[in-house]
Amino acid sequence: DESSIDSLDYEVIENYAYRKEQAQRGKLYVGYYVMVKWFFALLIGIGTGLAAVFINLSVENFAGWKFALTFAIIQKSYVAGFLVYVLINLVLVFSSVYIVTQFAPAAAGSGIPEIKGYLNGVDMPGILLFRTLIGKIFGSIGSVGGGLALGKEGPLVHTGACIASLLGQGGSSKYHLRSRWLQIFHSDRDRRDLVTCGCAAGVSAAFRAPVGGVLFALEEVTSWWKSQLMWRVFFTSAIVAVVVRTAMGWCKSGKCGHFGSGGFIIWDISDGQEDYSFEEFLPMAVIGVIGGLLGALFNQLTFYIAYWRRNYLHKNGNRVKIIEACLISLITSIISFGLPLLRNCSPCPEANSDSGIECPRPPGMYGNYVNFYCSKDKEYNDLATIFFNTQDDAIRNLFSAKTIHEYSAQSLLTFLVMFYSLAVVTFGTAVPAGQFVPGIMIGSTYGRLVGMFVVKVYKKLNIEEGTYALLGAASFLGGSMRMTVSLCVIMVEITNNLKLLPLIMLVLLISKAVGDAFNEGLYEEQARLRSIPLLESRPKYQMRKMTAKEASGKRVISFPRVVKVADVVSILRSNNHNGFPVIDHARNGETLVIGLMLRSHLLVLLQSKVDFQHSPLPCDPKGSRSIRHTISEFVKPASSKGLSIHDIRLSSDDLEMYIDLALFLNPSPYIVPEDMSLTKVYNLFRQLGLRHIFVVPRPSRVIGLITRKDLLIEE
Amino acid sequence: DESSIDSLDYEVIENYAYRKEQAQRGKLYVGYYVMVKWFFALLIGIGTGLAAVFINLSVENFAGWKFALTFAIIQKSYVAGFLVYVLINLVLVFSSVYIVTQFAPAAAGSGIPEIKGYLNGVDMPGILLFRTLIGKIFGSIGSVGGGLALGKEGPLVHTGACIASLLGQGGSSKYHLRSRWLQIFHSDRDRRDLVTCGCAAGVSAAFRAPVGGVLFALEEVTSWWKSQLMWRVFFTSAIVAVVVRTAMGWCKSGKCGHFGSGGFIIWDISDGQEDYSFEEFLPMAVIGVIGGLLGALFNQLTFYIAYWRRNYLHKNGNRVKIIEACLISLITSIISFGLPLLRNCSPCPEANSDSGIECPRPPGMYGNYVNFYCSKDKEYNDLATIFFNTQDDAIRNLFSAKTIHEYSAQSLLTFLVMFYSLAVVTFGTAVPAGQFVPGIMIGSTYGRLVGMFVVKVYKKLNIEEGTYALLGAASFLGGSMRMTVSLCVIMVEITNNLKLLPLIMLVLLISKAVGDAFNEGLYEEQARLRSIPLLESRPKYQMRKMTAKEASGKRVISFPRVVKVADVVSILRSNNHNGFPVIDHARNGETLVIGLMLRSHLLVLLQSKVDFQHSPLPCDPKGSRSIRHTISEFVKPASSKGLSIHDIRLSSDDLEMYIDLALFLNPSPYIVPEDMSLTKVYNLFRQLGLRHIFVVPRPSRVIGLITRKDLLIEE
Ligand SMILES: Nc1ncnc2c1ncn2[C@@H]1O[C@H](COP(=O)(O)OP(=O)(O)OP(=O)(O)O)[C@@H](O)[C@H]1O
Ligand SMILES: Nc1ncnc2c1ncn2[C@@H]1O[C@H](COP(=O)(O)OP(=O)(O)OP(=O)(O)O)[C@@H](O)[C@H]1O
Ligand SMILES: [Mg+2]
Ligand SMILES: [Mg+2]
Repeated sequence: DESSIDSLDYEVIENYAYRKEQAQRGKLYVGYYVMVKWFFALLIGIGTGLAAVFINLSVENFAGWKFALTFAIIQKSYVAGFLVYVLINLVLVFSSVYIVTQFAPAAAGSGIPEIKGYLNGVDMPGILLFRTLIGKIFGSIGSVGGGLALGKEGPLVHTGACIASLLGQGGSSKYHLRSRWLQIFHSDRDRRDLVTCGCAAGVSAAFRAPVGGVLFALEEVTSWWKSQLMWRVFFTSAIVAVVVRTAMGWCKSGKCGHFGSGGFIIWDISDGQEDYSFEEFLPMAVIGVIGGLLGALFNQLTFYIAYWRRNYLHKNGNRVKIIEACLISLITSIISFGLPLLRNCSPCPEANSDSGIECPRPPGMYGNYVNFYCSKDKEYNDLATIFFNTQDDAIRNLFSAKTIHEYSAQSLLTFLVMFYSLAVVTFGTAVPAGQFVPGIMIGSTYGRLVGMFVVKVYKKLNIEEGTYALLGAASFLGGSMRMTVSLCVIMVEITNNLKLLPLIMLVLLISKAVGDAFNEGLYEEQARLRSIPLLESRPKYQMRKMTAKEASGKRVISFPRVVKVADVVSILRSNNHNGFPVIDHARNGETLVIGLMLRSHLLVLLQSKVDFQHSPLPCDPKGSRSIRHTISEFVKPASSKGLSIHDIRLSSDDLEMYIDLALFLNPSPYIVPEDMSLTKVYNLFRQLGLRHIFVVPRPSRVIGLITRKDLLIEE
Repeated sequence: DESSIDSLDYEVIENYAYRKEQAQRGKLYVGYYVMVKWFFALLIGIGTGLAAVFINLSVENFAGWKFALTFAIIQKSYVAGFLVYVLINLVLVFSSVYIVTQFAPAAAGSGIPEIKGYLNGVDMPGILLFRTLIGKIFGSIGSVGGGLALGKEGPLVHTGACIASLLGQGGSSKYHLRSRWLQIFHSDRDRRDLVTCGCAAGVSAAFRAPVGGVLFALEEVTSWWKSQLMWRVFFTSAIVAVVVRTAMGWCKSGKCGHFGSGGFIIWDISDGQEDYSFEEFLPMAVIGVIGGLLGALFNQLTFYIAYWRRNYLHKNGNRVKIIEACLISLITSIISFGLPLLRNCSPCPEANSDSGIECPRPPGMYGNYVNFYCSKDKEYNDLATIFFNTQDDAIRNLFSAKTIHEYSAQSLLTFLVMFYSLAVVTFGTAVPAGQFVPGIMIGSTYGRLVGMFVVKVYKKLNIEEGTYALLGAASFLGGSMRMTVSLCVIMVEITNNLKLLPLIMLVLLISKAVGDAFNEGLYEEQARLRSIPLLESRPKYQMRKMTAKEASGKRVISFPRVVKVADVVSILRSNNHNGFPVIDHARNGETLVIGLMLRSHLLVLLQSKVDFQHSPLPCDPKGSRSIRHTISEFVKPASSKGLSIHDIRLSSDDLEMYIDLALFLNPSPYIVPEDMSLTKVYNLFRQLGLRHIFVVPRPSRVIGLITRKDLLIEE
């Protein structure tokens, strides 16, 4: 399984074909190229923005309509209402898991670990396909609309990345949506940059948090970062924000049903607490610690369960996956409907004209104080307010200010335990699933719980429970995903309360530190589970004591410059390596490493056959023979594994011929001397995004020395 | 001049001393090291926060007291008021320029280009000294308090960097403030990370914008970036925010005079415009274009003037610098006092109880509608409102909502032209000077001007002129400094209006694009002027066609492994190079490059003499002879150029002895084959932060191959 994962090539292969193309294309082409990049950034922004609007619109309408219907029916019969509620959820979840299992298996889960892997240099065919995109969009409508304990944010990131990748390869060839005109990005490097834009666009669209999106892409998903890229990512994010905003403005007058009722800021608490005092630092630290602990626990539990699912349960085929998802949907429906039933209603607080919050909530509206299975009119069910509600509304209610004492500690605790368990169990089912919103739900519940105690203890202060709910949400996300700056900005952008920024920062720092003491972040854990070989930015400690030679593969398989076709075939069959040194014999009998030949390029040569020659002598590179290939022939499709040696059919005549590799190899791969410490090799490999490094003997002489001054060339 | 600039060494020199130290110190030491780094991050945060509070407190009190006094006096006599005003400004500016010229020449200017150079790998002794820190703090109090057209933000970044660097080297040796206990950071790399924290702390303190600070450090000043560093920078920023907030809370009750009257958010416009419509995109684009043009013009003009100053005016000594600064102070005072005098007063608008803004401003208060040289009581002078005011208040007035028609187009234009000219002329004088606040002043003036027209044309919409002032400010900064994400976040954090985020993003994108069409960003221009050889992140276009060999220095000066002391001295005298290959002769007569010797290390060896030996034979590295040096002896002081060959005194006996360099060299510098394209070499050099790269012949064989799998070592 692991050997099937290949790496991406972020290096520019400077072979003759490339050099020729470079020579033909002047500065103008560079300008054109840059323009296309920006144009694509624009398209990614628009595409992801529209996809997000579509998903949100569908989810909010499905969910809104579901709750409206259920509420209408329970006026007459709770049993009928319950059945309808369960059924709708079941249908939605079933459609989601059906789409995913039958049509787009790569659309399951959040997709962020895979994208992270892709941007770290790991190639996993399938994650960026057109069908994955479709599966992701419709699957997440079903799973989120169906009321499972998961969110749509992760899937939106994946959606953005898919859109970006499809644009980058000029459409989907399988579905005949391909346009030659768009195919100008030939290297993994350019695709990587587009996918980075796509990730940012996804977060930007999901949370309507453009700066948060940029930072998320930079801090959490990408492994390489350039300031030019930052600017383009920023542009994409801004476009997404404008698109989503425009769509919401257009929907304002009720044209889109339930969509967009919450305003552009998802959970606006700008009218909440503005100030904090020193006494509050203690409960905040407590929240940070709880967040770290619960977050780390969440990572651990989901890791175990996902491990078990992967290795045992899901081995039994798609039917099991479907049954599992439906079962979880059933359980979720029963709990979210049943538990509020068992809870006694509380009397409404005295009407407060200041806050403008009605109790109980008028039918057909959103907000606090849900009347559910209450005997009297002026009562509300606090558990139903958060449990029997869409997630967005539940979070809004938990964050809400001026609703002190709305929830009882018992309800919050019940909800916390039940929802935490549901989130853990739901994670890893075969539906598109994000962990942001469930994390916010869990975090804000215990945050509000702590807030209740703070309000009780520090009576005199102007404290809002909602503030603590926000801090709790930040702490849980920090403890689980271990992001810092991006999470902080996202939290501020979704709540529109800048004044709490220093608090959010401190809580995040604490929860991340606590979480890091136990395990890795959620995405890293999940990447490990899926055996995505991520390279961290920091070299491991024991690398200091190892040398490059010790780490490298020992018996190097290499090619001579002019090689018999039969030999090529047999060598390529004998191993799975993707890169081979090419060794030339100089006239005086000495050998010389002249470059690196990629398996994929060799396969292209074998398939096209035009470069076969009868003579075993090298041809003159500058001679009459022109280069018969353009760069684009060598481009590996992003959506598949590309050619395999087993696809190649050669006649026995062909096998007797020769190829001169000199024209097609990468003449200058990066090299390191054999006794360089592995730390340094690691830095080279990781920071430059390489795929192969040659370990060579110490050189015999130094031809020249390059310092800063040599690189200060004026344009 | 240029040859005197050396580079920093971000590479770990893995010589024997280092390896021994590593072997002795286990994982525990790594933990200790990390802890100290965090502790230092904390100290940097506290230090910079306190410095910022001190500067702000002093500036606001000086300025506040100055205007209060002047206003008190002009009740009786305008002439006397004018004289007092001029005099106070003159004294403050004089003290600033005196401190800078006599005591801390490196404290002049904003310091950001220098810090940027430092973090790019350019060593400039003097910029991070203790005396620079002191000069910067007191100098900027004088220059900003003295009413010059400059800000205190750039200097605060420099202040933060100085604090960080001083901590990193364990204090200042010159002033006996050094503590051995703190001296555990021996490499330029660790110091670089601390300085990055310091920069973020500076911005965070200047604008009370913690996230903006982090992003500023990442986007604008650092050249390398790791996610671990991001987290530490984030922590520092959070600490700064808490420190500043605490200080402001403590000052709230008026204990600190005029300080902190504005609240934590400097220019809060959260009650301003919340929504925007499509029609507004056109004026916004116009503002973006104006910003790009004026910003690029600003860069160009300041470049020319600074060039002239540097090469002609300031060559004449300190007295000229002092006279120049005082003259500019005089002109500034005359213009800011005189122009409002010439302006007719306008009648106050009808009282609006909603906005709570009084007209005219009551004496001794801050706010809009300044009554200055008006004949009637119910009148105000719109030019004085922005010109005869502290910069913070002027900006607040320009940004203010609910004050439509406060300013006449004529006044805004007058102010724009005058202030722009003053800012251009003031830039480059020998006082600490930031360009953020002047940029905001200029930008918000033309922004408000555009806003006035918009309000006039689109009558029906709910448009605030203040919103356009904000966009104008963003556009000018974007057009001049060419930052994107960080500027955007800073603008949001200083105004607390998240809803305008997408607009700010678009305006910034436009103004940066327009500005980039003309010249480089302000800091890059200034770095070029000071001949700081910055390496951009992107390789130059023509590097694609060059090879490493073509770029490198041709005749390499190298050392044999065992070298005569006299030869060392003569070679070191004969050139200025800082790194030398060391070549060993194997027994079979072949040569072997065994490493890179740094000039600074050689000088340490020459000075200490303990490693001299009589025999010209190499000693056994694993033999009895122990290493007589600890790493710390090789550490170059951050604050000076270090040893020079001319400081070394050797007897003739010493000169006849030998040194075996094998123990002291860096055994594995990065190497590139001679025909690698310069683009790739550039990427290697730039991304890894190197100082020397060896260009070597093509290797004769490949010992091993390193791929991703070889680097996936579990801890
Ligand atoms: N040409 C080669 N000759 C000998 N060993 C090799 C060669 N290429 C790779 N190896 C070694 O084989 C092991 C597996 O590497 P693998 O074959 O998967 O590399 P690859 O397929 O070329 O690159 P990747 O899998 O990252 O795309 C590694 O330890 C590597 O050092
Ligand atoms: N040992 C050397 N032998 C020959 N040429 C060298 C040597 N070191 C540097 N050069 C060349 O001399 C020129 C000036 O480099 P310089 O001497 O300033 O490098 P340096 O001082 O070692 O590094 P830096 O100035 O970046 O600290 C460059 O073109 C470089 O290639
Ligand atoms: Mg492989
Ligand atoms: Mg030099």
